[in-house]
Amino acid sequence: MKILTLLGSSRKAGNTEQLVKEITAGLKSSTIHLEDHHIKPIVDMRHTEQGFSHIEDDYEELLKQFLSHDIIIFATPIYWFGMSGQMKVFIDRWSQYLRDSRYNMKEELSKKTAYVVAAGGTNPKITALPLVQQFNYIFEFVHMNFEDYIIGNAVKPGEIELDGPSLTKAKVWNRKFAQLQAK
Amino acid sequence: MKILTLLGSSRKAGNTEQLVKEITAGLKSSTIHLEDHHIKPIVDMRHTEQGFSHIEDDYEELLKQFLSHDIIIFATPIYWFGMSGQMKVFIDRWSQYLRDSRYNMKEELSKKTAYVVAAGGTNPKITALPLVQQFNYIFEFVHMNFEDYIIGNAVKPGEIELDGPSLTKAKVWNRKFAQLQAK
Amino acid sequence: MKILTLLGSSRKAGNTEQLVKEITAGLKSSTIHLEDHHIKPIVDMRHTEQGFSHIEDDYEELLKQFLSHDIIIFATPIYWFGMSGQMKVFIDRWSQYLRDSRYNMKEELSKKTAYVVAAGGTNPKITALPLVQQFNYIFEFVHMNFEDYIIGNAVKPGEIELDGPSLTKAKVWNRKFAQLQAK
Amino acid sequence: MKILTLLGSSRKAGNTEQLVKEITAGLKSSTIHLEDHHIKPIVDMRHTEQGFSHIEDDYEELLKQFLSHDIIIFATPIYWFGMSGQMKVFIDRWSQYLRDSRYNMKEELSKKTAYVVAAGGTNPKITALPLVQQFNYIFEFVHMNFEDYIIGNAVKPGEIELDGPSLTKAKVWNRKFAQLQAK
Repeated sequence: MKILTLLGSSRKAGNTEQLVKEITAGLKSSTIHLEDHHIKPIVDMRHTEQGFSHIEDDYEELLKQFLSHDIIIFATPIYWFGMSGQMKVFIDRWSQYLRDSRYNMKEELSKKTAYVVAAGGTNPKITALPLVQQFNYIFEFVHMNFEDYIIGNAVKPGEIELDGPSLTKAKVWNRKFAQLQAK
Repeated sequence: MKILTLLGSSRKAGNTEQLVKEITAGLKSSTIHLEDHHIKPIVDMRHTEQGFSHIEDDYEELLKQFLSHDIIIFATPIYWFGMSGQMKVFIDRWSQYLRDSRYNMKEELSKKTAYVVAAGGTNPKITALPLVQQFNYIFEFVHMNFEDYIIGNAVKPGEIELDGPSLTKAKVWNRKFAQLQAK
Repeated sequence: MKILTLLGSSRKAGNTEQLVKEITAGLKSSTIHLEDHHIKPIVDMRHTEQGFSHIEDDYEELLKQFLSHDIIIFATPIYWFGMSGQMKVFIDRWSQYLRDSRYNMKEELSKKTAYVVAAGGTNPKITALPLVQQFNYIFEFVHMNFEDYIIGNAVKPGEIELDGPSLTKAKVWNRKFAQLQAK
Repeated sequence: MKILTLLGSSRKAGNTEQLVKEITAGLKSSTIHLEDHHIKPIVDMRHTEQGFSHIEDDYEELLKQFLSHDIIIFATPIYWFGMSGQMKVFIDRWSQYLRDSRYNMKEELSKKTAYVVAAGGTNPKITALPLVQQFNYIFEFVHMNFEDYIIGNAVKPGEIELDGPSLTKAKVWNRKFAQLQAK
């Protein structure tokens, strides 16, 4: 059970990352911090004769790492009531590699289990529900199992410490993951 | 009544753009095609002492153009049940300039009227509803008037021609805008 | 192509009904006005040994009428951001008759096509979206085809006349239904 | 801090009720079990000259009880991806009494705090989100504070015992309510 956090934050040690730390404490897990990498937005070539062309950036390397894990924690700050642009750009590029025969992406994605962690302000337990619904549609589309989500209520650094229910849930996930890895 | 289309497509002459053409036919209007510009994802510096720093890209120039219009058509293909990464990256950067005293962004945004055009497949009249809700939260947050939206059902180039209700609505908007500009 | 309007309004000649009139003008169609009938709320007996018992009300008669049509227009005023209690009570009772061997409800429902008409105030083009999503889940559950929906913006009697887009869509449906019945 | 559970279930000792028992264990609280009372669906008379007329049923008595509490737990089984018809019929009638000068309903509602408990099956952590959004709109409309919600995953009697996160949250609410009442 290899666990990966796909982290869409643009600052270090933010509330989203802190939730992830609770979730993965004491576990073997990896993190892709998207901010540390260069990823270009997709250029849609689905309907051209030549199809997608090779893009010079870090995406393929990250995709290989992404695909080599079983459990993916999609962890994003809530920017403007959605996932961060960084994370959206990462997911948009799936469209390219779903059509790339070198990757068996469709089948690989369908074997994974997704968890969503999203932290932000402005009444997120309500206003982040469209984001949860969007993630649900995304995972349904690629037949990825969407196991659960945490909506963290926090804006300023450290504020997540005041969100008891989110921290509790993070600890429950942590125990569950520990059991899965102990098998 | 200056009209701007903020176009988030990554290919030319796609279905979203075609809808926009119907909407703006015969009108004086401008377009920012985000794909033609270089915009970096936000780096959140809200909680640092120094605040945001100057970013070398096309953003400020585009923002000035954006702010000089009264009606904004947010036109995006539906990528993964959301707005394109390109458009999300553009909106995320608002957080920086809402804190930049050179721009009176908060007040400027509150004077604008927003229209949303989103085109895509996979049952969009249902699956794009979270995107509409997200746009609604965005516009509420900046007190921008959210006037109406069109969800276009189209994947392959030209397919939008088969979506009668969307084309009809595009024409209704067109007449309305023509009247506004005639005043 | 037998068309039925299931009307959940509690007053006569309201905005919802007016939209339905536009949609069915000149067509052969039936209406069940739920307000004119006595329907008891469901008592959930799914998990009892004896199962559901016979209920003394108008439901079975209405259900037979309902099941004998191909196209169902679920037309409800928007009360408290949802369908009317009257309509909800009608749908809740499906749970009973899905378990009643005298009705082949599961198969029958899966052959029907659903349209939704909902009219109300308080920014319905946004605030009625959860209702549309709920209807979508309902129709998915019983494999009914959810073809389209109209969200009418109207509170006071007659106000629907000012909602151009809804009236236009009503007329488009009307032409479509006329063609279907002409076959 | 007077706590009331408004229970919309149609069977006794169901999963929703079990969650409520955890939430209110050891506390002073009341329950209105809607199933035990006779409530007629609303007849909309808002736009008639004479206005609403007196209805012969249990509603006014229940409304008085409802209005005399500070914290309301809206507890409903998830029927067809929404609140039960019983609960919807109860809420619909608010429209009548918001216009009844004997009740100062608008002001009274705005002083209350709402909690939502909804239990059902068919992937409720996702499919009940429109219901949460609907409740949010309802509470916003009457300026009631919407504090939190639990979506329980359970269909058969007793199944809620397997939904750890919901039980945990129920216990957290219980402690919080105990502290509020201890003041």
